[in-house]
This record gives sequence, structure tokens and C-alpha cells, in this order.
Amino acid sequence: MRTLVGNANVMDTPSDMEPHLIDWRKRHSGKAACVVFPRTTEQVSKVLAWCNDNAVKVFPQGGNTSVCGGSVPDNSGQSVLLNMRKMNRIVELNPRNNSMTVEAGCVLADIQAAALEADRLFPLTLGAEGSCQIGGNIATNAGGTNVLRFGNTRDLILGIEVVLADGRIWNGLRSLRKNNSGYDLKNLFIGSEGTLGVVTAATLKLFPRPHAVATAMLGVATVSAAVDAGLKLQAAFPGELVGLELISQSEFDISLRHAANTRNPFQKTPSWTVLVELAAATGTSESLADKLTDALSDSFSDGVVQDAVIASSEQQREDIWRIRHSVTEANGREGMGLTHDIAVPTYRIPDFVELAGLALAEHYPAAVPVVVGHMGDGNLHYIAMFKHEYWASVEDKAAVQLKLSHLLYDIAAEMGGTFSAEHGIGSLHVSEMGVYKDAAEIALMQEFKQLLDPRDTMNPGRVLPEVAAALRTG
Amino acid sequence: MRTLVGNANVMDTPSDMEPHLIDWRKRHSGKAACVVFPRTTEQVSKVLAWCNDNAVKVFPQGGNTSVCGGSVPDNSGQSVLLNMRKMNRIVELNPRNNSMTVEAGCVLADIQAAALEADRLFPLTLGAEGSCQIGGNIATNAGGTNVLRFGNTRDLILGIEVVLADGRIWNGLRSLRKNNSGYDLKNLFIGSEGTLGVVTAATLKLFPRPHAVATAMLGVATVSAAVDAGLKLQAAFPGELVGLELISQSEFDISLRHAANTRNPFQKTPSWTVLVELAAATGTSESLADKLTDALSDSFSDGVVQDAVIASSEQQREDIWRIRHSVTEANGREGMGLTHDIAVPTYRIPDFVELAGLALAEHYPAAVPVVVGHMGDGNLHYIAMFKHEYWASVEDKAAVQLKLSHLLYDIAAEMGGTFSAEHGIGSLHVSEMGVYKDAAEIALMQEFKQLLDPRDTMNPGRVLPEVAAALRTG
Repeated sequence: MRTLVGNANVMDTPSDMEPHLIDWRKRHSGKAACVVFPRTTEQVSKVLAWCNDNAVKVFPQGGNTSVCGGSVPDNSGQSVLLNMRKMNRIVELNPRNNSMTVEAGCVLADIQAAALEADRLFPLTLGAEGSCQIGGNIATNAGGTNVLRFGNTRDLILGIEVVLADGRIWNGLRSLRKNNSGYDLKNLFIGSEGTLGVVTAATLKLFPRPHAVATAMLGVATVSAAVDAGLKLQAAFPGELVGLELISQSEFDISLRHAANTRNPFQKTPSWTVLVELAAATGTSESLADKLTDALSDSFSDGVVQDAVIASSEQQREDIWRIRHSVTEANGREGMGLTHDIAVPTYRIPDFVELAGLALAEHYPAAVPVVVGHMGDGNLHYIAMFKHEYWASVEDKAAVQLKLSHLLYDIAAEMGGTFSAEHGIGSLHVSEMGVYKDAAEIALMQEFKQLLDPRDTMNPGRVLPEVAAALRTG
Repeated sequence: MRTLVGNANVMDTPSDMEPHLIDWRKRHSGKAACVVFPRTTEQVSKVLAWCNDNAVKVFPQGGNTSVCGGSVPDNSGQSVLLNMRKMNRIVELNPRNNSMTVEAGCVLADIQAAALEADRLFPLTLGAEGSCQIGGNIATNAGGTNVLRFGNTRDLILGIEVVLADGRIWNGLRSLRKNNSGYDLKNLFIGSEGTLGVVTAATLKLFPRPHAVATAMLGVATVSAAVDAGLKLQAAFPGELVGLELISQSEFDISLRHAANTRNPFQKTPSWTVLVELAAATGTSESLADKLTDALSDSFSDGVVQDAVIASSEQQREDIWRIRHSVTEANGREGMGLTHDIAVPTYRIPDFVELAGLALAEHYPAAVPVVVGHMGDGNLHYIAMFKHEYWASVEDKAAVQLKLSHLLYDIAAEMGGTFSAEHGIGSLHVSEMGVYKDAAEIALMQEFKQLLDPRDTMNPGRVLPEVAAALRTG
């Protein structure tokens, strides 16, 4: 490795490597022979080619913000951890083409900031944006709170550069909006979590920077009313509605209880809260808020919306978002939350919440259902919250967790839903792939894996069930 | 075939088969042993499996509207033409999920109409919409005039069902907005033009139906001014700007000269015309037109826009679009137009038009440059127009056509552009694939083809250069 990338770009003392071998939530850890920090695509190519020739496993790592054990190596201690942070150049930003080319190690927040500086928007936004890297976002097809309007990461990518398992470089860095010349290769790599190759650079889509924002919280009595309110807003503001989040009363109160600087904008926390955000290119935030108020008046008189708070200052806007952004931290203080990143067809959200609540009440009466999620995308983070002392008393925690999760995943699957909406598979959900995915689909995925990484050196044990099984026995 | 799909669904007399063996422009034709009309996915599966087992070539066909020879078989006369028109059911339309599941043989206009009836929009719109089928749109990742706002066909698809070359059925009909569970398979099939399998059904994204429309034509002096005006409109109306077309003076006048019921909305045809269309969910068309007028006032006073016509009635709107929609027909009457479906990064459009014009003037002085295209997507249909009598005198037409095309493609390629933006490859552009695509990219495509269709029975001779060569010699 030192020969390939230079002494300064290889790390192998345990204390230096340690932060790279455990995830930020301290739930997943692994070992590595060394951590390698390539500086160029050519170095990545050399590292992968060498590893492939010598059957050495490679685990790519971005900002190490995976919640699915996708960013730390396995426990062999024989593998190479390929950390991308030294490839962090913004190669080109072209406002007249609404495009930007970046290296994979660029931190998402830096990309957002560079776009804003050029009066443009790169709309991908999510909790980890201060440390996650665009390469990881692409590898996991990351979601977040702007998906309703701008799509997942996949939809924001014009082109990528990939180094394949054998070291071949595919330079697919195009900035074209249309290009129907042959198969679409990039989407196979986007979301493949580093198991088919390493994304080393990308050309991103930029959008006009919005100059007006309106943010509101709506209180509704039922999930069904929340979905109805959302559909009305989508119809009224198809170009401006960027965020449509759902928060249960339990989650809202947890956030108020444990997170710093939160305050309840309602007199009484509603059963369900819908967080709405509009963004417009022109006009003022005040006029946009007025339009939102007008659009909500029908839902008010219909009784669909019972209470509403519309931010009238940037401070109030921040207060509203703080409640939403604090949930992960607050949930950690509240108890042991078993989180599920499910998605169902949007109109089935009320059914999912009802059936999941009944199932928890029947089988896990100690669990409080806590719900927060991206309602507009049909994506809920459905959390079974146990008091810390209760969870401490559970004997086989892993077994309870698995059984409870599958109870919920079964309900989602029955509705044509998924057990993994935006967080990916990593190592955590590999077993669910075997349970919930169609056999024909798994077979096709394995054929692609076999084609592109026949020696299974790229991020082994992730995403695909049988490859993982082979690794465990091999 | 009769055993597999029933007597009524097989056709083999030459006179019956004839309309299926030649394309609508009478430029490409082929032969087939029979035309088969499957009624179910299972029948498609049986046909493909049998053909695969017996090494019989299969040519899938939708509405037969390809302009690249992609919808007619080759000349062997030993192949099966698989026509999808009998699989034309709308399986489900769910307004609360903004989704719609259709069989591949549904005509695009029928899908648009069904969506509108449910107060929704399926935004794919293109010249052939009255006869093209959604299966063909998916196979070619069709573009059209709404791509700027809603994306290509690829971006409008939530899930697909595919029958693979060996008869395996992959049911990927999901209606989820987020699903990060494993590799994205659907995008590999979308745009693969039937060479990797046959798309039999799809779940489509729907959008709120717009209730206000504003349409305008802007007269500008230069292509650069056109691009500037477009960028300003994009910044002002990111959610409403659905169409942004460019028309050269030559094309505008041809349309006026030859197409029925066209009239010039300008006193004098501008050097370049930008066709603008805004659509909004709410408000009136009048107020949207007022907003457009306001937004244009700056460009007027800057001198960027020299003349403008904003439609103030549906009649005027239709008059404006008629000029645009008549170009194919009018060009046919004007002369022999050699059409090129190029795309470049949007900001390079002025450079492309300039360099292409200089190249034509130098090497083909008899050709008049005629330009019409989707400026917002960087996609131009660049036409070298020859007088009929001149073209009749050209001896080696094919050689002139090839040389002229490559002259233009070279200019696009130099700018990071493509020789095929939205029409696909078909059989017409296979040779360009070998010339203009990166070798690593072609190699990857061939590996996928080899994996999914090792016997090369699926639409052979299309898309990939070397497979086509093998077919020619085999």
C-alpha cells in the first residue's frame, strides 16, 4: 500500500486506525490491516487492482455516518479500509450549466455551501450533512428531507466516475441532461454500497437557489388527516413543496423533553404534526407564508387541520426544524429505540401506522410507538421505544430486536413496502434481503455482483445475502 | 408460437405482416417469420424462453415510431417480431399515491388522458404520443418537451416488470418513492432498447394536474441571448417552467411555408425564437401570463429579448405550438433534411451552433442549417437541409450522410456531448457507438449483454457495436 499511495497516505497503528473502525453510534465495529487514503483516482485504481490480484478485501469508507454498519470493516483484520477523505476537491462548478463536479470525499455541507455561493442549490439535505461525504451519499442513494421535490441522490447525479474491483476506471463524468447512447451504467453503481466498485467523483445537478421559504407545523387528529393535508399541499404547490414530514405526539414530546432549546409552538402537542416547508425562487418569504395560509384555510374549515403554526421569522423557522432535527439525539436519551426505516405506498401510511401500533400493543406492550418520517415519500422511521431499565432486563436482545423488526417489516411488505427506504442495507440488513426480496431479484443482483466482482473483494458481506453467507463460511 | 400464444395471436402471411415490417418514415424495413401478439406476461415469458432455447431472434415492437430503425426486424426473415399492442390494460390508477400501473402496450396518449381524468398529470409528451407505446418509451428512455421540469422517461418510472431473454420474469412493479434495498435493476433495462429483455408493465409517477398555463415566443438575436433568457426563466420559475424550446429562423420559416394553418405571430421572424411554457397548479392562466410578462421585462430592457408574443387565449397557444409541432412534416416538404439528435452541456449550445454552422458552410455549402430543439436540456435537433433536386444529384448518399453526421458529432463530442440525446441507437447509430463511446463503457455494456442475453436473441444488432458485428458475420 505504501508503494501504491505513498507513506503519508497509509495508517496502520491501532490507535490511529481506531476512529475509522467503529461507527459514530458505537454499534458496529471492525478491524483492518491498514487504512489507506488515496489522493487520486489512479491511486484508487492501483489499490483495488492489487487487492483483487491478492484476494484482499477492501472496505470503502466515506464520512463513516452509516446507521446500518455499512461504513466499518468486518472483523478479519486482514482487509484494507479505503478512506476517501483526501479526495475532496470541488473540480468544477458551472452555474450556466447548473452542474458541479466533485471528488467523492467532499463533505455534503461543503458542496451545499459552494452551490449557494454561486446562487445555486444542491438540494440533498440530511442529518449527517456536516460529516457525510458525497461518495457515501451516492453509494447509499441517500434520501433526506428534500426528496419529495428533488428526488433521492440518484436523481441528482448527472455522471459518475467509478473504479471497478479489478482496477478498471470508468469515467462517466457527463454533465448532459439527455444521453440515450447505450445502457445506463451509473444507476447500477449508485446505491450499490461499494460492493461493485468505488465511486471516485461525480457530476451533480444544481438548481436555482430559492429566495423565499415558508415553514409551518400543522396539528392533525389522525394519520389519515395528515396524508390528506399533504396531498392538498402537493396539489397546490407542486413546484414549491420541498418538505412534508410527519411527527407523532410521542416523538414530539420526546424532542421537547430531551433536546436543548426546543419549545412547543402549539399550546398542546397535537396527536400528529405535519411539518411543511415551501421554497420559491422569487418573491418574499412573507408572501409565500401568506399563500400557504390561504391554501390551508380550506383544510381548516374542513376540519382536516386542527391547529397550525406558520413561522413568521427565521428564528421561528429554526425553532420548528429544531424539534425535527433533534429526534435522534432526544430518542437516545428517552430510552432504547428500535428504529425501522420502512417505506410503503404513500396512501398506505395510515394503515401501516394503525397495524404496526396494534401489533406492538399485542406483542410488545412495553414498547411505545414513536413515529417520525418523510411522509411525502411514504418513508417512516418507525421506532419501538423501550425504557432503558426495561431494555436492560431483556435477556436475548438480538432475538427480540429481530422478531420485533420482522413483525413490522411483514406489515410493510404486505403493502408492497420495503424494510429499507433510505438508509441502505450495510451489514445490518443483509439477512432481511434474503427474507423480503423477490428470489428473481436477488438472483439478478448476485449475477451482477459475480460479473463485476467475481473474487468478492469489494465491501464483502454487505447488501447481498448469499455472498455474505459464503464469506462467513470461507 | 401458435401453441404458446394461441392461433389468434400469431400472424404470418406477408400482407398481414407488412405494416409491422417497415417504419412510419419508410426508411427502415425488415423481414420476420411471424408476428406474435402476446396477451400476458406469461405468454411473453414462454415466447422468449422458446426462442432462447431454439436460438431464434426476437425483435420487440411497440408503436413502431422509432426514427432510428429500432422498431423493425432485421432481414433474416427467420425471426419472431414480438408486438406488444394486445397488452394494453391500465391495471391501476391511484390518485392518492400519484401512481399508475400499465401494461407495456398502452398508447402514451391513452395514459395521459387517463391521468388527466383523475386530475393528475403524466408529463411525458412527444410528437408520436398518439401511437407510441409506453413500453417503447421505456425501452428508449424517451425525452420530449417536458424533460426540463419532469425529466426523461427514466425519471417517471417507479417500477417495471421485465421478461428476461431466458424467459425469467422479474416483477419490479413497485410504487415506492424510496427503496434502498439492493441494486437498482430497473434503470439498466430502461433505455436498453429491448436488448436485455422485454418490459411488459410499468408503474408510473403521476403529478398534480396543472390548472394554469402560459405560453410565449421570444425573439432573440443570438443563440447566446436565447440561453441567457432561458437561464433567467429557470431561475424565476424553477417549478413552473416546463418547456424551453429553441427554433432557428430557417426552421420557423419552413414551418410557416409548408405546414397547414400556421401563421407568424411576429411581424418579422426573429433570428432565433425561444418557445416558453409555464404550468402552475393553481391560479389562472391570465395571472401566470402576467407573471411571465413581469419576469421578461428585465430581459427586454437589457436588450436580451427583442420581441415577445405571449398567448392570451387557448387559440393563440395552439398557434404557437403548431409552429413547433409541424417541423417534422414541414421539413419533409422543404427538402432532404439530415437530422442529428445531439446534446451538449446546456451552456455550450451557442458554441455548438456556431461551430456546426461554420463546418457546414465550409464542407457542405449547399446545406442550410436548420435548428429546433429542447434548449433547456441541451438537446438540439440539428438538421442539414438540402434542396430535393440537389440531394437527388448526390451520388453516394450514404457516404455523404455519414461524413456530414460525423463532422457534427465530432463537434458535440469535443464539448462532452452526445450523438444521441433522446432518440436512442436502434440499428441506425450502432456504428457511432463504436466511434464515440469510451472503450471501457462499451466493454461494460457488452459484459451486461453477455450476462443477460448470452445467445444474443434479444433485439440483436441494436445498440451494441460488436454484437452487431458478430451478427453480421454469423
